[in-house]
Amino acid sequence: MNYDTMFQAALDELHRDGSYRYFAELERYSGRFPRAFHHGIGRDVTVWCSNDYLGMGQHPDVLAAVHKALDENGAGSGGTRNISGTNHYHVALEKELAALHGKESALLFNSGYLSNWVALGTLAARLKGCVVLSDALNHASMIEGIRHSRAEKRIFRHNDLDDLERHLKELPADTPKIIAFESVYSMDGDIAPIEEICDLADRYGAMTYLDEVHAVGMYGAQGGGIAQERGLEHRLTVIEGTLGKAYGVVGGYIAASTALCDFVRSFGSGFIFSTSLPPMVAAGVLASVRHLRQSSAERDGQKKAVALLRERLDRAHIPYLKTDTHIVPVMVRDATLCRTLSDELLKRFGHYLQPINYPTVPQGEERFRLTPGPLHTEEELDSLVEALSTLWKEHQLPLAA
Amino acid sequence: MNYDTMFQAALDELHRDGSYRYFAELERYSGRFPRAFHHGIGRDVTVWCSNDYLGMGQHPDVLAAVHKALDENGAGSGGTRNISGTNHYHVALEKELAALHGKESALLFNSGYLSNWVALGTLAARLKGCVVLSDALNHASMIEGIRHSRAEKRIFRHNDLDDLERHLKELPADTPKIIAFESVYSMDGDIAPIEEICDLADRYGAMTYLDEVHAVGMYGAQGGGIAQERGLEHRLTVIEGTLGKAYGVVGGYIAASTALCDFVRSFGSGFIFSTSLPPMVAAGVLASVRHLRQSSAERDGQKKAVALLRERLDRAHIPYLKTDTHIVPVMVRDATLCRTLSDELLKRFGHYLQPINYPTVPQGEERFRLTPGPLHTEEELDSLVEALSTLWKEHQLPLAA
Repeated sequence: MNYDTMFQAALDELHRDGSYRYFAELERYSGRFPRAFHHGIGRDVTVWCSNDYLGMGQHPDVLAAVHKALDENGAGSGGTRNISGTNHYHVALEKELAALHGKESALLFNSGYLSNWVALGTLAARLKGCVVLSDALNHASMIEGIRHSRAEKRIFRHNDLDDLERHLKELPADTPKIIAFESVYSMDGDIAPIEEICDLADRYGAMTYLDEVHAVGMYGAQGGGIAQERGLEHRLTVIEGTLGKAYGVVGGYIAASTALCDFVRSFGSGFIFSTSLPPMVAAGVLASVRHLRQSSAERDGQKKAVALLRERLDRAHIPYLKTDTHIVPVMVRDATLCRTLSDELLKRFGHYLQPINYPTVPQGEERFRLTPGPLHTEEELDSLVEALSTLWKEHQLPLAA
Repeated sequence: MNYDTMFQAALDELHRDGSYRYFAELERYSGRFPRAFHHGIGRDVTVWCSNDYLGMGQHPDVLAAVHKALDENGAGSGGTRNISGTNHYHVALEKELAALHGKESALLFNSGYLSNWVALGTLAARLKGCVVLSDALNHASMIEGIRHSRAEKRIFRHNDLDDLERHLKELPADTPKIIAFESVYSMDGDIAPIEEICDLADRYGAMTYLDEVHAVGMYGAQGGGIAQERGLEHRLTVIEGTLGKAYGVVGGYIAASTALCDFVRSFGSGFIFSTSLPPMVAAGVLASVRHLRQSSAERDGQKKAVALLRERLDRAHIPYLKTDTHIVPVMVRDATLCRTLSDELLKRFGHYLQPINYPTVPQGEERFRLTPGPLHTEEELDSLVEALSTLWKEHQLPLAA
């Protein structure tokens, strides 16, 4: 058996269809986000595709909290949460996240991916006979968690209440059910009908599991997400979030009842057997969450940047998806072209936009996914749109009406 | 449906059988490991169950590297590895880990759990018809990765070459096979017959996947693990390790051929869709790995502490498993008694030893798992053994011969 030949054959296929991924080796300059040194081309670039939406990764409060916890507690936790690895900052952060969402408890994971995978995997596997109703565009981490549980899964059409109800109607009243969905869908930037989904859940006795990873920190008076913005937090069974996007560091969590969090804590293999996050990470995140609970300046600056970018794109007739969120998808719909445009934007104009290709989006829906933030200047916005205009002309791409 | 009632019923069961887990809320004192403040009892304790085996979490090189990367690059990476989240330190660390193990490449994950789950899950799922031969005592992260792949799994008896060969013989020559096993089994502290397993792998055309999480940093001239100590690294297809135990921070990795690493990088959902580790974490780990490649002082100090502890336990006739490794398991074999002894050690004597219970070990094999290190003083060792002696007498527990 020549295993490497098998691996290489699969990789060759990716090269052929243009979806092979080249990583950009970056060094973001703390204090000068969104500027970064790009090792591949050996010069500075402007980053347009970061999920550090608000630039909290360089916020003075966050940096100070990390430095302090590092000095006081060292670089790592030293163990799993159960075996010597629960630090004071983990506990404080879980309390803060519970308070943020108006829930009894929260449970911390090493990543957003893990939080979805472990929480859904544990709930769906251990509630006898459980059926998961899953939105068709749910994130990979939710899909894999459900798959891992081996519970019955029913996929409802994206944000389609009628289709969801049709499935719910077919299930016996005494069957445990979880409706799993997102608030902000990251790639198209659309938002779920949360209230109506909660109504259906109540009517048919289902739990609701809401992924708010692209919304926490960004929406709601305290950054609690879309559910907070709409006053719906109390109606959701589980709110899941990340600490690696708007909060600027890394990690994930669920907020829910004490019994539910304790259940996942006690039975979730991916929680039990993971070395916990370093105390310094929990401390940095805690500072970030606290800051964004009482400051809206970053959210306001972010909204302003999005409005400006859209205005400039409209003026230049560059086509993009108009969404209700902070995400500005510029559609290219071809993996190879997306890669070519990305290379030219980078090398000729110093703008870094990663091509988004399969499996992050379906084939034929390749795009740039722009996330302008409060730290992008008007000059940078102008420069980007000018570069896009130039390339749109050179490649004779269709303009918007 | 009252879901919380269902969750609570399952938790009540854990309370009844004594295996409910209470987390100890700690603050380790950087610069004074293994001392920590215990929030539950409100005073300082000595930690005996940390996986920061060598105290690298407070090493000056590590702390300096984290501070520097934090100042330069901020608190988080800002994205997944593919979408703006590859930092210079991730790349440098992967090169260092490949060099450490004499492999072409390495691939970094957010935790050791994820590295096993993603790597085994991806390899076994995508090699058509793959069968995984899995040691009976493999870690939960390997078991879940194999389970997730839905590949056929065959469990061979722990460290049993005859049983492994029996399974291999039954499989067709052209079936892809992965033998998944560990070097140091964490709970019993025994070591796999790596060379003989590689011989069988060669004979039957299988890949070898070796989990060295409890051995990296600890064994071998450069801390490359048991395979390095025995000069066998070139014979293994994949070496998997953690950055959260002897290296003192957090994270996991695989080291293997470039084609294999690229394959997992390109198809592993849990890799693709995770926000990458903060640059400061990669920088801290890089300093830790580099230090332990050229310094054996920590490993020597660790071995000395283990020898001293064993000598003291022998003298006091406290029964423990004699292993070839750094792990000193003191068997209690009862969940409730283990919890009681742990409470008394903590509250009366200031020694923190977490009871190890199900599902980390099978029911009836509850224990303390001691990991003495280079930072434990002789006075601390004496004090611990004295406390154990007192409790052994008070509870009339059987002494060793």
